Amino acid sequence: MDKGVFVSAFSNGDIFVGETLGTAALILLGGGVCAAVTLKKSKALNAGWLAITFGWGFAVMIAAYMSAPKSGAHLNPAVTLALAVESGDWSKVPIYLGSQLLGAMIGAVLVWLTYLGQFQANQEPTLGIFSTGPEIRNPVQNLITEIIGTFVLCFAILTQGLTKGLGLSGTGVLIVAFTVVGIGLSLGGPTGYAINPVRDLGPRIVHSLLPIPNKGGSDWSYAWIPVVGPVIGGLLAGGLYHVAF
Amino acid sequence: MDKGVFVSAFSNGDIFVGETLGTAALILLGGGVCAAVTLKKSKALNAGWLAITFGWGFAVMIAAYMSAPKSGAHLNPAVTLALAVESGDWSKVPIYLGSQLLGAMIGAVLVWLTYLGQFQANQEPTLGIFSTGPEIRNPVQNLITEIIGTFVLCFAILTQGLTKGLGLSGTGVLIVAFTVVGIGLSLGGPTGYAINPVRDLGPRIVHSLLPIPNKGGSDWSYAWIPVVGPVIGGLLAGGLYHVAF
Amino acid sequence: MDKGVFVSAFSNGDIFVGETLGTAALILLGGGVCAAVTLKKSKALNAGWLAITFGWGFAVMIAAYMSAPKSGAHLNPAVTLALAVESGDWSKVPIYLGSQLLGAMIGAVLVWLTYLGQFQANQEPTLGIFSTGPEIRNPVQNLITEIIGTFVLCFAILTQGLTKGLGLSGTGVLIVAFTVVGIGLSLGGPTGYAINPVRDLGPRIVHSLLPIPNKGGSDWSYAWIPVVGPVIGGLLAGGLYHVAF
Amino acid sequence: MDKGVFVSAFSNGDIFVGETLGTAALILLGGGVCAAVTLKKSKALNAGWLAITFGWGFAVMIAAYMSAPKSGAHLNPAVTLALAVESGDWSKVPIYLGSQLLGAMIGAVLVWLTYLGQFQANQEPTLGIFSTGPEIRNPVQNLITEIIGTFVLCFAILTQGLTKGLGLSGTGVLIVAFTVVGIGLSLGGPTGYAINPVRDLGPRIVHSLLPIPNKGGSDWSYAWIPVVGPVIGGLLAGGLYHVAF
Repeated sequence: MDKGVFVSAFSNGDIFVGETLGTAALILLGGGVCAAVTLKKSKALNAGWLAITFGWGFAVMIAAYMSAPKSGAHLNPAVTLALAVESGDWSKVPIYLGSQLLGAMIGAVLVWLTYLGQFQANQEPTLGIFSTGPEIRNPVQNLITEIIGTFVLCFAILTQGLTKGLGLSGTGVLIVAFTVVGIGLSLGGPTGYAINPVRDLGPRIVHSLLPIPNKGGSDWSYAWIPVVGPVIGGLLAGGLYHVAF
Repeated sequence: MDKGVFVSAFSNGDIFVGETLGTAALILLGGGVCAAVTLKKSKALNAGWLAITFGWGFAVMIAAYMSAPKSGAHLNPAVTLALAVESGDWSKVPIYLGSQLLGAMIGAVLVWLTYLGQFQANQEPTLGIFSTGPEIRNPVQNLITEIIGTFVLCFAILTQGLTKGLGLSGTGVLIVAFTVVGIGLSLGGPTGYAINPVRDLGPRIVHSLLPIPNKGGSDWSYAWIPVVGPVIGGLLAGGLYHVAF
Repeated sequence: MDKGVFVSAFSNGDIFVGETLGTAALILLGGGVCAAVTLKKSKALNAGWLAITFGWGFAVMIAAYMSAPKSGAHLNPAVTLALAVESGDWSKVPIYLGSQLLGAMIGAVLVWLTYLGQFQANQEPTLGIFSTGPEIRNPVQNLITEIIGTFVLCFAILTQGLTKGLGLSGTGVLIVAFTVVGIGLSLGGPTGYAINPVRDLGPRIVHSLLPIPNKGGSDWSYAWIPVVGPVIGGLLAGGLYHVAF
Repeated sequence: MDKGVFVSAFSNGDIFVGETLGTAALILLGGGVCAAVTLKKSKALNAGWLAITFGWGFAVMIAAYMSAPKSGAHLNPAVTLALAVESGDWSKVPIYLGSQLLGAMIGAVLVWLTYLGQFQANQEPTLGIFSTGPEIRNPVQNLITEIIGTFVLCFAILTQGLTKGLGLSGTGVLIVAFTVVGIGLSLGGPTGYAINPVRDLGPRIVHSLLPIPNKGGSDWSYAWIPVVGPVIGGLLAGGLYHVAF
């Protein structure tokens, strides 16, 4: 791991621009595919799980290119924490996390704007477009599922050497995108694979604020799981990588 | 951005050949997948939204290779305008746009020729094979959706550095293809993602002229939105990229 | 186009091994996905058009790697003819075509062997697993569809520079694979996209010979179209490429 | 084939870590997609054959990156044996095979942990999530199908030069992943494509041990086929490659 790239290559201003912009694009496209497949009067209605998983994968791909030259394309506090644990440098963590949360909220507003007509005619709970929820509600099990999913994500990114510079080449980003598709297909069944604290928390906040008719509750009792689980998964991945590689 | 590539590397003749040929291939394949999934007596009938979005993505990929060595593979006035804004050079814009519109019309005729038997037996409105239309008709909302979609496309291409020469390598074009798949999956639900003025206008003109039984109207009242929206989106992307990068 | 690669880099023996082996793999995997999706008591039954088109695309990818170092991975008389027209060298054409036809027949036998239990329990016509057929039978229209599809394939391969050596790298072959997926999705609806004379003729011969219960006829009256159409399409692509590039 | 890489580049300790970790990831993700598509109360329920085949392909991709720097990413006794036959060096075969079996068992436990709530509510036989089984039970036919599938896998990997160092680059691993998708789509219909002895045996052992309600039998009478078939297929591929290339 090239410690220098993570610590000193990016200024605070660039990190703010890159992570805010990139995470906004991530949530616009990732929330967008959930809206596309879920909302009535959408051409993609019922396009299915494969559409959702590929949609999120390409969302990561597009967002990573936008933020890579500015901030190294973390887009996820779990990735930022995995890198901090692995490298031992925590100085940039706050600016990364703050920008990611802001970006995620902006992205969620853009989903709403893109599908405004569909949202205005909405008749059903819409939290699933913004945030994740479990099929079987069980805090310990749901936490374990999110830990495993995020561990695979962060450990995969670390072993793929994404943040070494080389990894931000065309192929490297594409591999990460397909990694996210794979995690969604394989590990997303029980909880909807948040595997990213801000991907869940940012849009949940926005969901609670937006004027969408019949939008239903924001399920705050579940909100800590897709935050804590991914944080634990990312820390474990960073630690194991530090020991094993 | 390597200004030289855009301005002087391609002659007017090469731009004409590359953009006409490439945009014809784009619409043949993009319109083709819509015909394949929509028309009765097609083996791909009801293959679904994932087939349509991957079909359009690979259409971009194939067309980009055909036109890249001749004209840099714009294939889209929104991309041409984004590059003009970004670079400040507008001299080649007219030849690009004219060739793109011509190519799009040729491509639409080729779709008709490929599916001639199916079109001759047609019983239903066919505009959806040629041009886009909204699920919920609302000019402001539809315009916003097209602006957002095209902004993502053009900003993605700019950050991916596609037009720098490197970007026209195998991986670069593939990434753009998957970017188009992703935009379709995530942002295509409300309006069918024109995100390209000639992709919509060229085939709409051809639809109005072709002798297809029961073809229905060409919906000219909507035609300005998939032209104006993408133009605004491309200009915004070029401008923001110019400022931020 | 590097004429030397095509003419002298491969010996007759290597061409025979490479094209026979590669085309056998192509038809084993391509015919295999048709068997998988069509035959009763297959886990992939009714997996749909997207499965078929991706299956054929990856069949091309796998087969191209097997034959590339031996013979340049033509695997298709239309590609061989396009290259002959483009380069002006016809000396190796017979050995390429003969090996391709032999390989296609071997591949069709291997499909039968892989799905032997399913074929033994067969109750329905099986020609569609081996060869193509039109949804609407009209020789002129079917020929036009096959010409357009094969033209796109060969012109795409030529512009992608596949046979220049560079093109046989990982990315180059992958792009060709996705090109075939794209042609299938967009242009395959009317005739099932043979776009390759031996891909259709070889398995049709094998279908007429194999002892499959209730296998139905081999539809010899249609057999000339997926041979003649692709030959014309390949020659046109080679000629246009020679003039325009 | 660079014999040195296979024999001396990896220590026993690294092989153990790499293959155990990688095969655990392979089965976690591969078994995971089967659980996702099969189990009630999973968001991916009935996502279909395309989801399963892409899920297994991306499982290979993710696992290969994790183990490539440590052990060359065999992850499959058939691949290890194909390389041993091809190179003539058998000294590392035991440590590879033992680590792969251990990893496969760990991966199967992780699938159970990820989908714990779904498994606890289980009402139906679950062996299909862990191991393969034939649609039509016929030992000779099932063996032939597994031999052909594994031959294609190993021969493809050898011709793609995966283990030469270059092959473990981003594109090389991606090509192998899509090769696995292609084999699944085309050859997986009759037996569910084990094409890897430990992928089937490891999870079958775990299935027999786990406390899953209504889990059904572990079908030990079939267990030898997905072990013996892939071993034969791998040996044939290594031998033919040794002769022909």
